[in-house]
Amino acid sequence: MLEIELKASLGGISPQALESALKKAGFAPGQIKEETDIYYNGNDRDFRKTDEALRLRSSRVLTGEVQSKTFITYKGSKVDSRSQTRPELETSVGDLDVMKKLLGKLGYREVMTVRKQRAYYHRENITVCLDEVEGLGRFIELEQVEEDGTAKKEAVIDRLLDLLSSFGIPQSNLLRESYLELLMASATS
Amino acid sequence: MLEIELKASLGGISPQALESALKKAGFAPGQIKEETDIYYNGNDRDFRKTDEALRLRSSRVLTGEVQSKTFITYKGSKVDSRSQTRPELETSVGDLDVMKKLLGKLGYREVMTVRKQRAYYHRENITVCLDEVEGLGRFIELEQVEEDGTAKKEAVIDRLLDLLSSFGIPQSNLLRESYLELLMASATS
Repeated sequence: MLEIELKASLGGISPQALESALKKAGFAPGQIKEETDIYYNGNDRDFRKTDEALRLRSSRVLTGEVQSKTFITYKGSKVDSRSQTRPELETSVGDLDVMKKLLGKLGYREVMTVRKQRAYYHRENITVCLDEVEGLGRFIELEQVEEDGTAKKEAVIDRLLDLLSSFGIPQSNLLRESYLELLMASATS
Repeated sequence: MLEIELKASLGGISPQALESALKKAGFAPGQIKEETDIYYNGNDRDFRKTDEALRLRSSRVLTGEVQSKTFITYKGSKVDSRSQTRPELETSVGDLDVMKKLLGKLGYREVMTVRKQRAYYHRENITVCLDEVEGLGRFIELEQVEEDGTAKKEAVIDRLLDLLSSFGIPQSNLLRESYLELLMASATS
């Protein structure tokens, strides 16, 4: 599975204007979640150099019945220079605290925690997220999941760029960096 | 949490004789499970040298409604010379195949798979397991879980040794090695 993903800062666009543009474009509002992501560095290599990521995500659904879930995720390095596309492996984990201790015993060290509130919008196989990230501000993510590999990747990226443009967000707002990278950059600047 | 554990080969004792001895001693039969354990070596150190273990367990309950679950477990080195006692961290995992791939990406290599059928017996905080291990034979495990650390550890070991003796199993049948170690020894001998 490949997730093809674009991210941009909202810049001058208000979240309200964007929400109504999304609805006009046929996107249906989905869940709102509070996500706390703990990122780890490698124990035998530096993930900042290999462009990999190991993450424990604690996700709390705020819409409907409140429920919490934990996931462990591995992300490989980005596969092209235009998008944030990476191979990804993710599964649920029963107990966050036990998994944190287990990773600690294996030698993984926490490097950063990213907290955000994320509102989901869906249209067919495209998901749009409006994110408010603690310490960073507001962002939009557009994601299309392709089960059958990289064949149509360039076409999908063009389609997502058109969509972004139709929301009034210029390509100059695009960001290749993850929230983790942006937070680490702002912490050291 | 500390699990205090003894293990012995059944030797000449038949499983049927042992089952009736367990019932006479007040143990209630519990679930029967089929457990498949995949063991990994470390990616930054040799777990055979550090006496640690990283395991993915796929557990299938054969009694009542059949259900499968996956667990990830880290075991630290043994804390004394008389028992198999180790600090242990375990939590459930949603998808075995994804977790296998994720550990592979992190650099963990499968070293051995241990398959066994395990019948559980319970009395208060003591659990007895009658195990039939593929390629090794039949064993008994006695385990007492202590939430509050190592204070009563020696007394617990003595109590479990008395219990073993009452089942007609001599102390010469005791084994400190894990099934993994026994299988690796038989594979190289």
